Amino acid sequence: MPATPKKSPSKSARKSVKKTAVTAKPAVKAVKKAAARASASADPIAVVQDLRIRPGKPGKVLSSELRYEGPLFRVLSEEVEEPTGKRNRRDIIRHNGSVVILAVDTSKSKRDPLIVIERQYRHAAQQFLYEVPAGKMEPGEDRLAAAKRELLEETGYTARKWKKLVRYFASPGFLGEWMQVFVAEGLAPGQAAPEDDESFELQRVPLSELLRLIERGQIQDGKTLVSVLCYARSLGRK
Amino acid sequence: MPATPKKSPSKSARKSVKKTAVTAKPAVKAVKKAAARASASADPIAVVQDLRIRPGKPGKVLSSELRYEGPLFRVLSEEVEEPTGKRNRRDIIRHNGSVVILAVDTSKSKRDPLIVIERQYRHAAQQFLYEVPAGKMEPGEDRLAAAKRELLEETGYTARKWKKLVRYFASPGFLGEWMQVFVAEGLAPGQAAPEDDESFELQRVPLSELLRLIERGQIQDGKTLVSVLCYARSLGRK
Repeated sequence: MPATPKKSPSKSARKSVKKTAVTAKPAVKAVKKAAARASASADPIAVVQDLRIRPGKPGKVLSSELRYEGPLFRVLSEEVEEPTGKRNRRDIIRHNGSVVILAVDTSKSKRDPLIVIERQYRHAAQQFLYEVPAGKMEPGEDRLAAAKRELLEETGYTARKWKKLVRYFASPGFLGEWMQVFVAEGLAPGQAAPEDDESFELQRVPLSELLRLIERGQIQDGKTLVSVLCYARSLGRK
Repeated sequence: MPATPKKSPSKSARKSVKKTAVTAKPAVKAVKKAAARASASADPIAVVQDLRIRPGKPGKVLSSELRYEGPLFRVLSEEVEEPTGKRNRRDIIRHNGSVVILAVDTSKSKRDPLIVIERQYRHAAQQFLYEVPAGKMEPGEDRLAAAKRELLEETGYTARKWKKLVRYFASPGFLGEWMQVFVAEGLAPGQAAPEDDESFELQRVPLSELLRLIERGQIQDGKTLVSVLCYARSLGRK
């Protein structure tokens, strides 16, 4: 059931001070800084030191039409009554979800472990990208089982130790796909068995090198950015 | 033109040592650790200390069929000759690309600035998510102009200083959408003008609080994870 729509306190607050902020246009350059400070203090958008996450309840689907169904995803056009009270028509892509594996080899260094990276041609991006292993869930599959399967298929590795790192939505404006990232440690090599339409170059790359590449903007895959950056933080690495 | 397919050196290397790794199955538990060390040293996947990024060339589209066209994206089913030499059929989603704005208020603290965060209902995720402002590009639009437009529409802010932070693909297995993240500083408040189907609660949240929420797995939007984590690294923050 949709929740009662609530008016955002920040929005109503903004209205009350809007005019002040908009009319504050200093003509003299020297006073701009002071004015910026003043308008900052008059900023109607509330400062929240301690953000309480309220996921709310799902909206109510009033109608749903299947527009396309392929092997990887379905496209639906739905009319939704959102918990805000608004009714909207949304084109959305439904997907089973994906598992992502940050496969970590700490045998040489715990502080700067090696991470398994694939170079893979991505038609959607029209280039080769450097990515951590990942794949889509089969219907009804357990997430950890899917992660183990994908790691084995794509790299040949099995891992002794698995833990969840983070779960997120890749592009929640229209894509239902979530990504569950696992960290896999205690790697033992074996034989990869990629699917027919897959082709990888595999390498193990030091975390420090990946962080350097990320800082230079050379890693362009979202799940790899999220996985490596979250993992680096979990190690307390800058 | 597709590049000549190259055989991965790591893959051919793997083949030559595969049997050793696979037949090493210690029956006694006590020797497992030593065996793990041994198989780690026999790991056929190369260690690359200095990863040279080779994006390659786009594949050749042999056929393309439009499966669905909506306001936000198009679905195409394409047969592609990839630069690896493989021919594959791929369902892909074409999208104009998105701009993402990390709007940073450093007026109180440069070390722990405030970040503008929206709480927004996302039908694709079936929940409210906490996100940085973002929106899709209009056809032919300049990226920076799009970022300024989206920030103003969604939050009312204008910003004196803009710089690019990172650009990435949200889910490159099938989605062509890239996300260009900008950092916007020197914020001045004004009047927001969200689109009819948009509804936000806005707040300014300290970077330290966002990092704490990320560590607890409470931020579930990919672009927000990437933007905040990359920005924190750029400040040298753990």
